[in-house]
Amino acid sequence: MNKIPYKTYLTEEEMPKAWYNLRADMKTKPAPLLNPGTHQPMKAEELSPVFCDELIKQELDNDTAYFPIPKEVYEFYKMYRPSPLVRAYCLEKALGTPAKIYYKFEGNNTSGSHKLNSASAQAYYAKKQGLKGVTTETGAGQWGTALSMACSYFDLDCKVYMVKVSYEQKPFRREVMRTYGATVTPSPSETTQIGKKILEEHPGTTGSLGCAISEAVEVAVSTPGYRYVLGSVLNQVLLHQSIIGLETEAALKKIGEKPDIIIGCAGGGSNLGGLIAPFMRDKILGKADYRIVAVEPASCPSFTRGKFAYDFADTGKVCPLAKMYTLGSNFIPAPNHAGGLRYHGMSTVLSQLYHDGYMEAVAVPQTEVFEAAEKFARIEGILPAPESSHAIKVAIDEALKCKETGEEKTIVFGLTGTGYFDLVAYEKFHDKKMDDYIPTDEDLAKSLADLPKID
Amino acid sequence: MNKIPYKTYLTEEEMPKAWYNLRADMKTKPAPLLNPGTHQPMKAEELSPVFCDELIKQELDNDTAYFPIPKEVYEFYKMYRPSPLVRAYCLEKALGTPAKIYYKFEGNNTSGSHKLNSASAQAYYAKKQGLKGVTTETGAGQWGTALSMACSYFDLDCKVYMVKVSYEQKPFRREVMRTYGATVTPSPSETTQIGKKILEEHPGTTGSLGCAISEAVEVAVSTPGYRYVLGSVLNQVLLHQSIIGLETEAALKKIGEKPDIIIGCAGGGSNLGGLIAPFMRDKILGKADYRIVAVEPASCPSFTRGKFAYDFADTGKVCPLAKMYTLGSNFIPAPNHAGGLRYHGMSTVLSQLYHDGYMEAVAVPQTEVFEAAEKFARIEGILPAPESSHAIKVAIDEALKCKETGEEKTIVFGLTGTGYFDLVAYEKFHDKKMDDYIPTDEDLAKSLADLPKID
Repeated sequence: MNKIPYKTYLTEEEMPKAWYNLRADMKTKPAPLLNPGTHQPMKAEELSPVFCDELIKQELDNDTAYFPIPKEVYEFYKMYRPSPLVRAYCLEKALGTPAKIYYKFEGNNTSGSHKLNSASAQAYYAKKQGLKGVTTETGAGQWGTALSMACSYFDLDCKVYMVKVSYEQKPFRREVMRTYGATVTPSPSETTQIGKKILEEHPGTTGSLGCAISEAVEVAVSTPGYRYVLGSVLNQVLLHQSIIGLETEAALKKIGEKPDIIIGCAGGGSNLGGLIAPFMRDKILGKADYRIVAVEPASCPSFTRGKFAYDFADTGKVCPLAKMYTLGSNFIPAPNHAGGLRYHGMSTVLSQLYHDGYMEAVAVPQTEVFEAAEKFARIEGILPAPESSHAIKVAIDEALKCKETGEEKTIVFGLTGTGYFDLVAYEKFHDKKMDDYIPTDEDLAKSLADLPKID
Repeated sequence: MNKIPYKTYLTEEEMPKAWYNLRADMKTKPAPLLNPGTHQPMKAEELSPVFCDELIKQELDNDTAYFPIPKEVYEFYKMYRPSPLVRAYCLEKALGTPAKIYYKFEGNNTSGSHKLNSASAQAYYAKKQGLKGVTTETGAGQWGTALSMACSYFDLDCKVYMVKVSYEQKPFRREVMRTYGATVTPSPSETTQIGKKILEEHPGTTGSLGCAISEAVEVAVSTPGYRYVLGSVLNQVLLHQSIIGLETEAALKKIGEKPDIIIGCAGGGSNLGGLIAPFMRDKILGKADYRIVAVEPASCPSFTRGKFAYDFADTGKVCPLAKMYTLGSNFIPAPNHAGGLRYHGMSTVLSQLYHDGYMEAVAVPQTEVFEAAEKFARIEGILPAPESSHAIKVAIDEALKCKETGEEKTIVFGLTGTGYFDLVAYEKFHDKKMDDYIPTDEDLAKSLADLPKID
């Protein structure tokens, strides 16, 4: 048998032609979105002032297993996909582990992450609907960059509300978005009612994703020809991101491998939900068994310390309610929290699956994540995004366990992106100015006190 | 016939096993390096305090056509190679040209450029010789980053002298090098005799490559167990970079294409010399004919406005003399010059070939380069390095000429890297603060007045 190559690429013909909708195979479906006023399930017509019509269909459809990828999106994908499944030979050797480590690398595009997979789909549907533009929020900046690229390609206007602390710490992210013609506004801002209100109530705030979402939604619903798009959490996003898992599945098959452990970082769930989609299907259907592990920051621990309950999706409480693992919509990670994975909630799909025992979750402290990141960069030659490094950390831990037990497990993790725009965080790490603030039980009790009462 | 894919990858087995030494097939060999004191050709033993022994052999060997790539370097290459040959379908469509445009993309690695191809080879030979570490200079930072990565992998100490203006404008480049364990010093510095001298004579200087080279060489020859390595200009570097051209040749063969025009950016010549190596061989041997075009910045126009003469390789005049197209070793591009391609000289190999009429050269102004860069980013989805964008600019120009004439030419250009660390320059461009200072004839006469007198 030939040795497995460092990088396994599918050919363009082998690239999946349809997205996979995991909800179709879930035994317990995710709870529906509720109208924040009436607490009744949201209907398509209620969502249409906010979202594109085609995306609403995808959002609400719990039954259709496969959605064909539109030709235009498929062509866009071919500019940067299929992405490689990499055998981490160097890392295995450096760790001295009998485990086989693979990572699906989504960072080889200018947005630097997997976010482009959904950005291109959402921009396409917006254009197809005849819209002028879209609004969105971005935290670490990966989503905003990806959306700017997609909007430039499909000739749509793009308005990005960027969490203020990121806007200031990542001027280069802003500049990339500008290269692609997007307008970038630090949030909270004076350009929206909700932004003004938040600035009045919290004058020194550095912003949050929940707040930026509220601003972007307000602008979308109040500007003719605009809709709001979101880079994570939503069902439609997980649907588009299933391309990651489908390619991973096909590549593993091509080289004759079966995973024992699948590991992904989890913020809102876009990468994790995409990566695990076909594997989780087989697990639900009893066709395969493996451990699926979500890794989240200890500073924003929705899965491991949050509550499974209906909550507001945004600080301004204008969005539908979602049943998910949440830390409360007022939760904001400590200012020293680097990178993304800072959302207070979690995908309803992943929340339900976690609740039903199909996956594990682990929270890891920030400095250990950066130690793993630096180790990985030096050994595997890729400087990883802080988000992705959460998965690296746990993949290394699992490989070291194999070293102890002598087990030759196959570990697959998602390397969602590169850290080229996260060097301020790396600098803090090098200068030992990074710490590991973890919310206290009191902090969480406080932010969870504001959950809506749903009968 | 199948449609040619967007990206053509060789398999790992198809990756070239040897580097190609273009000098072996040149009818007129490049002029030898001369001892700056005696003006006699440098012998291996004179170079050995500065360079690694194996690299000196490669530097001086004008006869051996193929050098096997050492197994350790080949394994390193497999972490990020083979690199894709991309068909620029989107760009062709946007330009409305009948031309077929291909680019060899070398930016999919953390150093963000082709520089890693030679950095890994040089670090490997240094380690094999039992050295403790290497010194080098870096301008835009691509070479320094690549060398840091390679030294980290091969467990060598790495001391980088970074041109001061880049050090200050690109703190993130510095931080990446730090991630890989390198020491980065802004040049000119107080750590060397030549640095002190230059600082005394030019107190406000923002540094130059020539000056940083002098410092790095001084440290290498005065520190036991250290040697100096260089990322461009040298014959050995072009040898290692031939992997670019060899892969391009193999990929074109795989898809049944023959180039009409080959375009590469030129600073010291590392990318251009590598990209064109096998194509130039066939042109020299009369087996093929095509145009080969070097693109340089109008602000640093060695080929188009320099003199073909022996000159100092560095400001401190400690390095051997090289016969090349040069602007004079005191030449420093205007401070508004962005990115690399700022060396006063040019590879002796490329200089000889240009002198002998085997290739063309064109100088392009900076703002036009950034216009091309932004256009390319929006259409092809990759944010290019300013250096690479010189080639993009001319590739677009040639494609537009084909549009006028209706010719279906095949254009191949080198996309050497990404611009993720060049956003300060992009920002200047967006803010219309970029200008196109081009040296006057008087400027050049002044910097060329100091050429050594060689009989």
